Amino acid sequence: MPAKLVAQRYGKSAVRVTKVRRLADRHALVEMNVEITLHGDFERSYTHGDNSSVIATDSMKNTVYLLAKDHSLDSPESFALHLAHHFVDTYAQVQAADIQIDQSLWRRIEVEGIPHPTAFESGGAETRYAMASVNGDVARVAGGFNDLLLLKTTDSAFTGFVRDAFTTLPQVTDRILATKVRATWAFANSQADFNSAFSRIRTTILSTFANHKSDAVQQTLFDMGAAALTAEPTITRIDLQMPNKHRVPFNFKPFGLEFNNDIYVTTDEPSGEIVGHLVREER
Amino acid sequence: MPAKLVAQRYGKSAVRVTKVRRLADRHALVEMNVEITLHGDFERSYTHGDNSSVIATDSMKNTVYLLAKDHSLDSPESFALHLAHHFVDTYAQVQAADIQIDQSLWRRIEVEGIPHPTAFESGGAETRYAMASVNGDVARVAGGFNDLLLLKTTDSAFTGFVRDAFTTLPQVTDRILATKVRATWAFANSQADFNSAFSRIRTTILSTFANHKSDAVQQTLFDMGAAALTAEPTITRIDLQMPNKHRVPFNFKPFGLEFNNDIYVTTDEPSGEIVGHLVREER
Amino acid sequence: MPAKLVAQRYGKSAVRVTKVRRLADRHALVEMNVEITLHGDFERSYTHGDNSSVIATDSMKNTVYLLAKDHSLDSPESFALHLAHHFVDTYAQVQAADIQIDQSLWRRIEVEGIPHPTAFESGGAETRYAMASVNGDVARVAGGFNDLLLLKTTDSAFTGFVRDAFTTLPQVTDRILATKVRATWAFANSQADFNSAFSRIRTTILSTFANHKSDAVQQTLFDMGAAALTAEPTITRIDLQMPNKHRVPFNFKPFGLEFNNDIYVTTDEPSGEIVGHLVREER
Amino acid sequence: MPAKLVAQRYGKSAVRVTKVRRLADRHALVEMNVEITLHGDFERSYTHGDNSSVIATDSMKNTVYLLAKDHSLDSPESFALHLAHHFVDTYAQVQAADIQIDQSLWRRIEVEGIPHPTAFESGGAETRYAMASVNGDVARVAGGFNDLLLLKTTDSAFTGFVRDAFTTLPQVTDRILATKVRATWAFANSQADFNSAFSRIRTTILSTFANHKSDAVQQTLFDMGAAALTAEPTITRIDLQMPNKHRVPFNFKPFGLEFNNDIYVTTDEPSGEIVGHLVREER
Repeated sequence: MPAKLVAQRYGKSAVRVTKVRRLADRHALVEMNVEITLHGDFERSYTHGDNSSVIATDSMKNTVYLLAKDHSLDSPESFALHLAHHFVDTYAQVQAADIQIDQSLWRRIEVEGIPHPTAFESGGAETRYAMASVNGDVARVAGGFNDLLLLKTTDSAFTGFVRDAFTTLPQVTDRILATKVRATWAFANSQADFNSAFSRIRTTILSTFANHKSDAVQQTLFDMGAAALTAEPTITRIDLQMPNKHRVPFNFKPFGLEFNNDIYVTTDEPSGEIVGHLVREER
Repeated sequence: MPAKLVAQRYGKSAVRVTKVRRLADRHALVEMNVEITLHGDFERSYTHGDNSSVIATDSMKNTVYLLAKDHSLDSPESFALHLAHHFVDTYAQVQAADIQIDQSLWRRIEVEGIPHPTAFESGGAETRYAMASVNGDVARVAGGFNDLLLLKTTDSAFTGFVRDAFTTLPQVTDRILATKVRATWAFANSQADFNSAFSRIRTTILSTFANHKSDAVQQTLFDMGAAALTAEPTITRIDLQMPNKHRVPFNFKPFGLEFNNDIYVTTDEPSGEIVGHLVREER
Repeated sequence: MPAKLVAQRYGKSAVRVTKVRRLADRHALVEMNVEITLHGDFERSYTHGDNSSVIATDSMKNTVYLLAKDHSLDSPESFALHLAHHFVDTYAQVQAADIQIDQSLWRRIEVEGIPHPTAFESGGAETRYAMASVNGDVARVAGGFNDLLLLKTTDSAFTGFVRDAFTTLPQVTDRILATKVRATWAFANSQADFNSAFSRIRTTILSTFANHKSDAVQQTLFDMGAAALTAEPTITRIDLQMPNKHRVPFNFKPFGLEFNNDIYVTTDEPSGEIVGHLVREER
Repeated sequence: MPAKLVAQRYGKSAVRVTKVRRLADRHALVEMNVEITLHGDFERSYTHGDNSSVIATDSMKNTVYLLAKDHSLDSPESFALHLAHHFVDTYAQVQAADIQIDQSLWRRIEVEGIPHPTAFESGGAETRYAMASVNGDVARVAGGFNDLLLLKTTDSAFTGFVRDAFTTLPQVTDRILATKVRATWAFANSQADFNSAFSRIRTTILSTFANHKSDAVQQTLFDMGAAALTAEPTITRIDLQMPNKHRVPFNFKPFGLEFNNDIYVTTDEPSGEIVGHLVREER
């Protein structure tokens, strides 16, 4: 057949694991959603139906649960690295393994102000994210988060943009800025303290978002990324995606009333999509 | 045509409004998703295409934004009542109006421990819920919440259930209990303090869930509802839906290992569905 | 505790079953998503954690697969009835059982115009729906469908509605009408030919929608329901929900151009919600 | 600030347009969901809040509707190319534009076997996909589809895979194969007949899937891609993603019964993820 396979990969997605560590004075709860992608010598499965080098995706699933038993799951980055190394080290035919993890953010229920030792409520739609790639001897690891929904009611302007025959948007010096942030950061090496990096970067991004006087979502993104690089020396790069989830001024004119920066139509689509990748500046 | 209209209603759903109140020292943010349903004399629209009594659903949408401008939106219950009365009072052909509101739970970003006056992060997937029904002179109002995701790692058993030819589930004295609670409570009248009721009931439900020793999800539901009725005298009834979002013990036997209440498969479906309606017991 | 359980029910949702019947010349494929709700003597599970009358929801799940093995699954209505009777007949403590089924609509892949005996493609997001309720000796059964997405580009007007201070919608004599129909119909008894009823009603609803000159979505709904009652003598009632999925004329005025019933903004929310319940008219 | 922007892009997603062409004997309906991404000289918006080169994403949205008015929308590929060229040609600061389009697949309602001229039903969750990238003078265009859900009840085996300490999956010579295909193909140039290519490739993929005797999803993928390359000479490459949507044999052993390739548990997660990229083989 006149076709050639130029690239292939395969794996398992949505392997969801819950781990409880039953400590003396409290339980620790971790829930992760794992995606495994293997690269390697699997061509004959595609071209000849020869599965002799194929690790069944069902076995990948088993591997997640088996390795979770003996691993502390102290961070998604460390477990992602552990899984990636496992696949590359165990199977000669695996050239590289990519592991993505989305971790749900449970927090302890507070009963009369005291965090409960064994009861938890959801931390929301936001997930902590990790990605580890092991390719032969080279390991790369990234952290991040998805779906952090933020909104500021002032200190956001959008003026001075191109005005032409396609433009109807008025210039505004005070608008609502709402966004659902996706952030990923690359660690310089695999020995970083992933958890303190996560806390420090997330806190920095939140406070920068809150205090920033924004002339464009792009500028807010850049300042958030720059602040994260400054705050966390163990990362070399940060990528940010910040869709603009528009709150549109309600048009009061037909009713003889005025919009006073008070009432907005909440929308999900269409949305602006702003993306930037930042590294540390070399001096 | 040999058909008769025995019931009809119509309205508008997913009217999403954002309101910012710009106070001296901070901004207050409210986001609500409003659904309006009208009951009344609209039959001829169905049977004859005669729209002379029809309030366009687009006008209902406008009404939400216009009334939101002059209302404090201090609680979803109060705004739902306001909207319901508006439709019944304004239009002779409207016999009854039902208003449902889902309110997103934004919280202030904390910068160095201090809540920011104008910046917010999402409170998660959970929404606060209100329902007001005005039918002629009678008004009923309910509060509640949706999608409160809870999990406890111990103090949950399930034993003593029916064992027959359809049963494979083992009895367990210590399992994970995870659920996504939907709660609605009926207020005795429209003069209640809806916000303090919401806080008190939510706090009570959380602490009951945390401290309860559960012999069945049903029992946990009942105790949560009973505690809410005790805690909040302004409500007469509470309805709870608590799907059982199973965490299934991973089967370690094929691997020569043991399950030690440590590693679970996280699932969404199928799920148990447990429902109960509680009132105050008459003495 | 001063609380009383006034109503309760429980069950299992999202039990998904695939059945293949391997006939001589072809395979038959059925996929159903089953929800079971039991009503009965389960109070002590709520009030005392006494599960002696509780059929585990896991056993309900098993029951679906076990009963599916011996049942032809020739229609969702017949299987829903079978399941409902099973629970009421098997367990003395079950007063009533409600079974809801959503059936995916697979169709055979056509290869060179010939339906393939063993390969299928999805029939889309629409599902066929059935509901059976058995309460003691009384059985009721309903059929229907969900999420039938329809659109007509003409023969839809909306004029003559209430114009007041809340109205901005212009009257239009020719608009797009798009809707996602949910229909359920009640059968007079359990001996109806459910499959031919489904085909006949669905075909009737489609052709009525297509040919109807609409003065309101309400009128379209009524004519669709009336036509269904006329077409299918075995049903006694039909309920229709028809959200108005608006296609909004794009505003060309700022660009010095005209809207010529050509370009619309496609929206999902907010949406109108139109509901009607029709029965056969007694003469 | 010690940060450097190494890459950036921005745009608008979920711009949804409905177009009706009112022909003499029938109406043509097209609905597209457009995503625009611009690359170019926008750094100062990020680094200085200087928006002088920024085309507002709101203007991009307007552009879609304005250009849709004068374009036939005869194919998503042609409109994607048109939009991409527009942005690169109109704005000096735009180096490159990527346009992605998902087109809903409406089909005409058949009334007594005759396709209706102005009424449509949804073609389901599957969407037709197009991607055009214009970078300076170079234009690339791709077609495809998303979410084509397929299932075959036989002629699918999975044997001979790696068996080790992580393996529990039995070898099976006859299983259900279900998948949700995402396919994209690259055209050799922008003058191809995009619509006939879409029809031919989709038909070829369906018939290959139906008739293929599969020893692995990977092999099915390869044969589908190879057949597409053979069938359609205007494409140079095809990429396929085929998650394995498992139908798991129900375990009848605890009930003293046998699984006879009849009853399966329908699952969505976890799922295998199989990916392959094929080109024409050079001879």
